[in-house]
Amino acid sequence: MNKGIFITIEGGEGAGKTTLIEQLAHKMQQQGKAVLTTREPGGIPIAEKIRSVILDRNHTAMDARTEALLYAASRRQHLVEKVMPALEAGQLVICDRFVDSSLAYQGHARGLGMEEVWSINQFAIEDAMPQLTIYMDVTPEVGLARIGQSDDREINRLDLEEIAFHERVREGYFILLEKFPERLVRVDANQELDIVLKDVLAAIESRI
Amino acid sequence: MNKGIFITIEGGEGAGKTTLIEQLAHKMQQQGKAVLTTREPGGIPIAEKIRSVILDRNHTAMDARTEALLYAASRRQHLVEKVMPALEAGQLVICDRFVDSSLAYQGHARGLGMEEVWSINQFAIEDAMPQLTIYMDVTPEVGLARIGQSDDREINRLDLEEIAFHERVREGYFILLEKFPERLVRVDANQELDIVLKDVLAAIESRI
Repeated sequence: MNKGIFITIEGGEGAGKTTLIEQLAHKMQQQGKAVLTTREPGGIPIAEKIRSVILDRNHTAMDARTEALLYAASRRQHLVEKVMPALEAGQLVICDRFVDSSLAYQGHARGLGMEEVWSINQFAIEDAMPQLTIYMDVTPEVGLARIGQSDDREINRLDLEEIAFHERVREGYFILLEKFPERLVRVDANQELDIVLKDVLAAIESRI
Repeated sequence: MNKGIFITIEGGEGAGKTTLIEQLAHKMQQQGKAVLTTREPGGIPIAEKIRSVILDRNHTAMDARTEALLYAASRRQHLVEKVMPALEAGQLVICDRFVDSSLAYQGHARGLGMEEVWSINQFAIEDAMPQLTIYMDVTPEVGLARIGQSDDREINRLDLEEIAFHERVREGYFILLEKFPERLVRVDANQELDIVLKDVLAAIESRI
């Protein structure tokens, strides 16, 4: 039905998604493709409003399921207003995070259950699944060091909790890689970015 | 687990829910029960914010699935912050509309599918289903006349569309009555309110 190609990029903190997506889009444009790079809520007013409810710092009492439903609602609106029209116009859409983030973070790491979080996301996206999802895999130590959260100073209890959480997120992605081998590809993002980019381009070429 | 009793009141426009709930609560309090009457978003700040996103008149482009997810999110937060604590304290909670409204309005009348809308609501409420749901059944003609939307003036096209929509809502409730006969009770709300109240009290006594 859609003439375009839908690729999503996943990965933990410090995996280098933002830079990779920029360079990937640049490469694809050089090949003559019309490219849309985006991430939720992506400037869509309704999705932005929903996100601001999630991020409101006064909302300390927000329940984890409420949050997961709000992410799904924001995802739906972004998909309908931004992603689908671009795909229908035949563009290549590269989206920074999508359903797999909810499954790995809320479903697995926060313990809501991947099946349960999948059920509300399936409602949100219907059959608009990406053709390809790149998982940029970094170890939490490398990732957190990159974003400066866990540098040379002595590792304290909070760091350890942080690392344990990101280990669970990573575990969630590993489960997804095993579950959807046709759609998900792991790329070693501990490497230098130009090597990562080569790996991503190879994955796209072999899969799409 | 809960010591309280959870009753929800459903019905189309002009069924008389608000007045009935007031009088029902009064009766129950006379019997010495601690009663909480509520309706989503019920003064819960997060739920109120979510509702304001739904009702924002600038949001003409809101997708029906986005809306259903937002209703489910608002429901979750209202349930966790207001309904559950009251039930745990042993109170009788009477809630004006709950999941069945989403199933009848969005699921059936708006055509999203009752099963699909149920899946996101199940995520939202887990096992916190009401012990009893009263469906106050009015014909759309009577209901709309009561709220002054369809009075003596000539019925125009919009009225007919309105009536057709409310017929579908009613059809949705009939499907639910058939599906969950243990939980749902139909009360004829075309009658005078004091008779309706008697019927509701009888339903509560025989079921709880």
